[in-house]
Amino acid sequence: MPSKESEFQAVENANLSFYQAFGSLDLPRMEAIWSHENPVHCVHPGWGLLTGRQNIMDSWARIFENTSLMHFRITDSQFEITDNRAMVICIENITSVVDTNVSEFRVLATNMFRKETNSWQIMHHHGSPLYPS
Amino acid sequence: MPSKESEFQAVENANLSFYQAFGSLDLPRMEAIWSHENPVHCVHPGWGLLTGRQNIMDSWARIFENTSLMHFRITDSQFEITDNRAMVICIENITSVVDTNVSEFRVLATNMFRKETNSWQIMHHHGSPLYPS
Repeated sequence: MPSKESEFQAVENANLSFYQAFGSLDLPRMEAIWSHENPVHCVHPGWGLLTGRQNIMDSWARIFENTSLMHFRITDSQFEITDNRAMVICIENITSVVDTNVSEFRVLATNMFRKETNSWQIMHHHGSPLYPS
Repeated sequence: MPSKESEFQAVENANLSFYQAFGSLDLPRMEAIWSHENPVHCVHPGWGLLTGRQNIMDSWARIFENTSLMHFRITDSQFEITDNRAMVICIENITSVVDTNVSEFRVLATNMFRKETNSWQIMHHHGSPLYPS
């Protein structure tokens, strides 16, 4: 059994790997962090629910095609970890360049991870716009 | 061990109980379905992250005070259930009357439940606006 500390570190690393893949705009990196098992779901801010690995990967390909820069600073992370599931809630502080338009915005995300052969794979991402309070 | 079918039914009932409590605008019913353990989190559409039972209950009190009718039709529910955690993703088709304004809208929700002494209690609600596609 891994210690609580090492498991926390593994989940935190999985969450950061997700955002590193996102920021790299590199589809193979994004494919590597997503679960190959079912179910998998994804909600991009303002989109409907995507279900199934193929639909989700198609959405990342589409996002990456239209984006020339995406920089993430992840803050306010909250964790809940059991033997084989982990929930991370965090704020994505984003600087992006989409179709030559630079913007800064924040997204509130719920990310669910499933432990599969000792690796934490993302199984659900729910991102929604976070407006200035 | 409960059967997979009875566990599915229990989680589905817990999710519907959450929306019945919401629709009844009855704070004690809402208090009964939320976990007394930590962590608990809640993201209302357009709000920031609320953490801790007191903050979450205060938010429901505030929502209920300003709402005279809230009717839910829950569709497109997706489930992932392990021994002691359950994720439900669903669409809330809502008719509401807030400050005498009637509106119809949809919210995409991720709801996380924790099994506590044989009862499924909600531990995280993340709702975000779902716009017509």
